[in-house]
Amino acid sequence: MSSSSYSNYTNSPCAACKFLRRKCSSDCVFAPYFPPEEPLKFANVHRIFGASNVSKILHEVAPHQREDAVNSLAYEAEARLKDPVYGCVGAISVLQREVLRLQRELEETNNDLMRYASCLGGETSAYGGRRG
Amino acid sequence: MSSSSYSNYTNSPCAACKFLRRKCSSDCVFAPYFPPEEPLKFANVHRIFGASNVSKILHEVAPHQREDAVNSLAYEAEARLKDPVYGCVGAISVLQREVLRLQRELEETNNDLMRYASCLGGETSAYGGRRG
Repeated sequence: MSSSSYSNYTNSPCAACKFLRRKCSSDCVFAPYFPPEEPLKFANVHRIFGASNVSKILHEVAPHQREDAVNSLAYEAEARLKDPVYGCVGAISVLQREVLRLQRELEETNNDLMRYASCLGGETSAYGGRRG
Repeated sequence: MSSSSYSNYTNSPCAACKFLRRKCSSDCVFAPYFPPEEPLKFANVHRIFGASNVSKILHEVAPHQREDAVNSLAYEAEARLKDPVYGCVGAISVLQREVLRLQRELEETNNDLMRYASCLGGETSAYGGRRG
């Protein structure tokens, strides 16, 4: 949810203030990013990072970057709840292995291509190859 | 540091207990994973997740998985300190884009290979192509 649509929700406390059972002030740092209709988003980041650390991070980043910061924290928190051992670092390992696999596959395919090109004769030099 | 080498450090409080200024007991949940000579490792995870959340996560996972859990938390914490907006989710985005780029490159190279094979005539059917 963007901060521009926050005005729709000013009558309800945001999900963070509701969770923390406190008054949601007009300058609440959480309100633009934790709308009341998404209670799990705050509950997750609270459980993994704690409200005070999330608030500290929000104050550290520029207002126009806070939505991205909250969404990345929510992503990390959800990943950690699903996989308490590796969290989203598990996804990084899977992607790193996939990059390596694709690089090897591409190299082998380029080698095949070079062999075909040399079979056709004289065209090898015209083929530059694709090198990731 | 593996828990087996923890015995070398039982005379000093672990980095967590030193940071939190508390007595490091023989059953301290942090001690095997936060040796005193790596004070930044605990300081980072404490700053991003909070000691109590780290302790909760450690109690949730099996003892043989705790070292991996601590290392992934330390990785996430360091990434968040370097990039408060995206943390390690930034690395995931970069890797996802790299996987897509390599998949496209591999597809184009396979198409080139098929064209070369058909130029050589009759060998196309023998070539199965590499499809990531």
